[in-house]
Amino acid sequence: MSSTAVSARIAIVMGSKSDWETMRFAAEILDSLQAPYHVEVISAHRTPDKLFSFAERAVDNGYQILIAGAGGAAHLPGMLAAKTLVPVLGVPVQSAALSGVDSLYSIVQMPRGIPVGTLAIGKSGAANAALLAAQILALHDAPLSRRLADWRKSQSDEVLENPDPRLLP
Amino acid sequence: MSSTAVSARIAIVMGSKSDWETMRFAAEILDSLQAPYHVEVISAHRTPDKLFSFAERAVDNGYQILIAGAGGAAHLPGMLAAKTLVPVLGVPVQSAALSGVDSLYSIVQMPRGIPVGTLAIGKSGAANAALLAAQILALHDAPLSRRLADWRKSQSDEVLENPDPRLLP
Amino acid sequence: MSSTAVSARIAIVMGSKSDWETMRFAAEILDSLQAPYHVEVISAHRTPDKLFSFAERAVDNGYQILIAGAGGAAHLPGMLAAKTLVPVLGVPVQSAALSGVDSLYSIVQMPRGIPVGTLAIGKSGAANAALLAAQILALHDAPLSRRLADWRKSQSDEVLENPDPRLLP
Amino acid sequence: MSSTAVSARIAIVMGSKSDWETMRFAAEILDSLQAPYHVEVISAHRTPDKLFSFAERAVDNGYQILIAGAGGAAHLPGMLAAKTLVPVLGVPVQSAALSGVDSLYSIVQMPRGIPVGTLAIGKSGAANAALLAAQILALHDAPLSRRLADWRKSQSDEVLENPDPRLLP
Amino acid sequence: MSSTAVSARIAIVMGSKSDWETMRFAAEILDSLQAPYHVEVISAHRTPDKLFSFAERAVDNGYQILIAGAGGAAHLPGMLAAKTLVPVLGVPVQSAALSGVDSLYSIVQMPRGIPVGTLAIGKSGAANAALLAAQILALHDAPLSRRLADWRKSQSDEVLENPDPRLLP
Amino acid sequence: MSSTAVSARIAIVMGSKSDWETMRFAAEILDSLQAPYHVEVISAHRTPDKLFSFAERAVDNGYQILIAGAGGAAHLPGMLAAKTLVPVLGVPVQSAALSGVDSLYSIVQMPRGIPVGTLAIGKSGAANAALLAAQILALHDAPLSRRLADWRKSQSDEVLENPDPRLLP
Amino acid sequence: MSSTAVSARIAIVMGSKSDWETMRFAAEILDSLQAPYHVEVISAHRTPDKLFSFAERAVDNGYQILIAGAGGAAHLPGMLAAKTLVPVLGVPVQSAALSGVDSLYSIVQMPRGIPVGTLAIGKSGAANAALLAAQILALHDAPLSRRLADWRKSQSDEVLENPDPRLLP
Amino acid sequence: MSSTAVSARIAIVMGSKSDWETMRFAAEILDSLQAPYHVEVISAHRTPDKLFSFAERAVDNGYQILIAGAGGAAHLPGMLAAKTLVPVLGVPVQSAALSGVDSLYSIVQMPRGIPVGTLAIGKSGAANAALLAAQILALHDAPLSRRLADWRKSQSDEVLENPDPRLLP
Repeated sequence: MSSTAVSARIAIVMGSKSDWETMRFAAEILDSLQAPYHVEVISAHRTPDKLFSFAERAVDNGYQILIAGAGGAAHLPGMLAAKTLVPVLGVPVQSAALSGVDSLYSIVQMPRGIPVGTLAIGKSGAANAALLAAQILALHDAPLSRRLADWRKSQSDEVLENPDPRLLP
Repeated sequence: MSSTAVSARIAIVMGSKSDWETMRFAAEILDSLQAPYHVEVISAHRTPDKLFSFAERAVDNGYQILIAGAGGAAHLPGMLAAKTLVPVLGVPVQSAALSGVDSLYSIVQMPRGIPVGTLAIGKSGAANAALLAAQILALHDAPLSRRLADWRKSQSDEVLENPDPRLLP
Repeated sequence: MSSTAVSARIAIVMGSKSDWETMRFAAEILDSLQAPYHVEVISAHRTPDKLFSFAERAVDNGYQILIAGAGGAAHLPGMLAAKTLVPVLGVPVQSAALSGVDSLYSIVQMPRGIPVGTLAIGKSGAANAALLAAQILALHDAPLSRRLADWRKSQSDEVLENPDPRLLP
Repeated sequence: MSSTAVSARIAIVMGSKSDWETMRFAAEILDSLQAPYHVEVISAHRTPDKLFSFAERAVDNGYQILIAGAGGAAHLPGMLAAKTLVPVLGVPVQSAALSGVDSLYSIVQMPRGIPVGTLAIGKSGAANAALLAAQILALHDAPLSRRLADWRKSQSDEVLENPDPRLLP
Repeated sequence: MSSTAVSARIAIVMGSKSDWETMRFAAEILDSLQAPYHVEVISAHRTPDKLFSFAERAVDNGYQILIAGAGGAAHLPGMLAAKTLVPVLGVPVQSAALSGVDSLYSIVQMPRGIPVGTLAIGKSGAANAALLAAQILALHDAPLSRRLADWRKSQSDEVLENPDPRLLP
Repeated sequence: MSSTAVSARIAIVMGSKSDWETMRFAAEILDSLQAPYHVEVISAHRTPDKLFSFAERAVDNGYQILIAGAGGAAHLPGMLAAKTLVPVLGVPVQSAALSGVDSLYSIVQMPRGIPVGTLAIGKSGAANAALLAAQILALHDAPLSRRLADWRKSQSDEVLENPDPRLLP
Repeated sequence: MSSTAVSARIAIVMGSKSDWETMRFAAEILDSLQAPYHVEVISAHRTPDKLFSFAERAVDNGYQILIAGAGGAAHLPGMLAAKTLVPVLGVPVQSAALSGVDSLYSIVQMPRGIPVGTLAIGKSGAANAALLAAQILALHDAPLSRRLADWRKSQSDEVLENPDPRLLP
Repeated sequence: MSSTAVSARIAIVMGSKSDWETMRFAAEILDSLQAPYHVEVISAHRTPDKLFSFAERAVDNGYQILIAGAGGAAHLPGMLAAKTLVPVLGVPVQSAALSGVDSLYSIVQMPRGIPVGTLAIGKSGAANAALLAAQILALHDAPLSRRLADWRKSQSDEVLENPDPRLLP
């Protein structure tokens, strides 16, 4: 699945290249759901103008969901949300000193008026941002809805079929 | 706006009656956006079976977004998310001893596979859950999209027209 | 000691297979106390229906104590407790970003009405859940009570007989 | 219900008189369940010898569960647990500066070997300690088991019968 | 001292009108030091374009220091810093649920490349932002340097002349 | 007991006059133990030279214990300890935003080489600093040792004689 | 220096053998100061009776300072302090999940009446406990006082003579 | 660039030699900006007199900015600020047990009257202290201002020219 597919309705953006180690777990989920996405590094602090122009063109580019990952004083998700009405999902990237608590607070504690739907710190949060994006798109995309249901069923089956934690692998 | 309107695509649920003091800020936003909603107390711990049946019927009831508020060891949003593919937005209600940090962690730190889009602790989070829900619905509802844009413009104008913090009121 | 012994009065459940690295310290204690137990992976989020049916059958299956371990937004212990009157002991599994503080808050901060007896984060907590379970069963099981007393005496003796921390090993 | 009834199988102890404001919520639950209990102030720090003699006589006094509440550097639950095999349930009392996080950590983070089943900080935790104690006793007390089931059903019914949070009271 | 004096080299900006209760302590210090300043409400989230244009014109407007106060997911100081080379001092405003820890982390934990000099949470931080701004300007403003030295001496004298804490007032 | 008695072997110092509300609990204990003390406001930040000269003269002034209370970025206890070999006991004063966690960390986390014996946050810590100071002096002061033993016995008796928390007052 | 010298006025005790990795830094300091000490493992939870008898005999054994290290729900320092008037210094041992915050709170947050002078988490705290103990003993031991002054001077000189951090080693 | 250049207007000081691993990131930035600086180890606790004399001579030595890094109970930045009107920027060094939260609180939570402009914990904070120092000096140094603008542009360009996080390196 190309990340720059014309039909991508989801954009995955992140504050720095190193965040890809976290955000690729969002991409993997979208790949497995056959949901096209765009992926790009946009830094709120180092490329603020690009952030603004990206957000201003989000609707025209056909994005229906923005997934934004950032760490530390993470301003990317909130500033995107301030500049567009396209729903923004935020992923707090685990940070060096504070383990992502700073990222989490910087993303989730948005003031009244500008929401960011925030997921868990780190890789699980990235994967879940993709799943939530897909659930939102699936409201008007029956095939995607079926693929989501299948995905979820397969993860349930995996647990149900291996109830004994002592068995390998 | 009746909260039990037939056409409600949003449900606001909460773990206890006392959470209404927080969650009514979600309802107020939806009222002002003319977005019908259903509202109901469902306790993950005291009425678990109702939680399950509510989640299982969410699609049939026409809900496209579930807004769930709870405090302390807040399990309502995550368990709803486990039982339906309808997107769930979680609002951590401020708790007595831990000021809502417990609520926040219990809602946002979901494991890979079951996402809850989490908003800020307390009233701002409740209001923002409603706004995010509206942004999601507005992807396929042009009039709502315009009302949202108006709402956001009016809050911007309020800041722009009152730049001096020392003036009354 | 088989973990699926007919006579098992204790069940050890956990949210994912990876929690076994923590929960096996509960099993080891029960093995050494000759207290039969059942062990199973049940995910509150990925297999919620199984969680409910497991809890509903807990009494019929003869369980008198449920030991439940989970990490992050840990809902397994609390949801079990919501569905049965069999006492539930919760073990917060150490999580990646927040070191188990999220697990702890999600388990211990239960609202009035649905108790979970919570132990320490991680391996010590798992071992102690087993010991507390045994103490509870020992109220009506004199041989187990004696084995518990022996176990505790042996750990005291180990300290008493090696008072100098500088001696090997 | 007299708290010093001969037949009391539960003892509620607390580190200082002021903890009664928290621990009386345990007593109220036990009253409503018709479960006799003993209540006493025992300070780990100011009356350590009494703590030891109380714990040593716990079995002879017929106690099957000790509920211990304390705040700050809360040592009462853990020291009781160190001195008896009677199961100990700990209630972290909300403290002045740290809101009970100190109490919680001092009670729940027990080392391997000496378990304390810990409940939530403050009043909810006190009430839940009583409920968990009753659940444990109910394993061998059918009438108490029925009263517990009734109690739980009535709290569920209260939620189920008042689903609209906007209605008075 | 008019806050809109032509010669103002310091601007005090804040995310919302309610932040004035905190930021006025910066203004009071500057008043007492006879250091002109501009004051304005600029919301990173509700008026992002104004934030950008304000930052872009900061040099032309003659500002040499920007003092920015904000609470919660506080993005104002960091986004100003991203858009100008004028030094930015950040004041974490005390927030409702998290007491300003969220504000502090959102301001101080800036990534390499875009610095914000951060002061203490709340009123003391606001006053100190003004003092630090004055110290910076005083590097090239001898009269201001003397007034600063006098100010500091007077606060020292106040302590030195009243060494007994028991005396009134 | 005059606080400036010639024979005072204990000095109580604090960073600001407002800290007296906390530190007077140290004074009350010393009064009741008939242990003379000196009391003075010395600010590490506003009167650093006085701090140094005070510490340099501590031995000549006959002080054997310094009790130092401060809040926020509390540097008074640690800087005293850096300037004298007289033992320093630190009292973290409860702060506005962070409830004294900042005070505690600033006092207790001293690097290897310069110790500060730290007590609890707030009033209890102040009282305990006085008690610990008295215990230290009592090593070579038999009458004080007896008064301390009496004091401790009376607080134990108070608990022992009032075992029922429900009785007034 | 033998740790069991008849003349030892300092005892170093710890909750488990593994705490020696931390507490040996106290021993090293005392060795270098030629201050004899006793060292012993005493567990508050696994050997509570030994803890009590040790504390009761502390005066008769000639101990003038007890240094107690423990981790997690660390009860050893506080319980020693409850049982003797010999001054107790507490060292919070770094714990697995919570990095010693649990240890710190369990030791420092003692209630009014029973003080524990608490040092930093981990090795620095252990070394500083030894230094503070020596400072206390040095009040009545001129040779020790001189050795302490020498020790401190040598650590100052080490910094003063190597002012450039870039030089080896 | 020699760190002891006569013309150095910036001094980088740190509490111990080991802090150089963090503070060298400040030096690297200043090197790349061709901004001369002095570097020295000064310990608030082990060399307090040197700290005072250094601060007292800061103006005479031509320093216009002091960058001070320290960890744990970090008193160096605040004590420098107490002794000079030269602006002080503080860098919280990441500490062993508390990951630098103690360092951060000890530096940023300064009381009203004595400001320290605080940067992020660790290496990013050190680099940003250098950048903020340069921004301050650049107010009256046009060539430095240009070099700063170039530096910032190059870091922006690096992001802009590598928008795809999946490409190597």
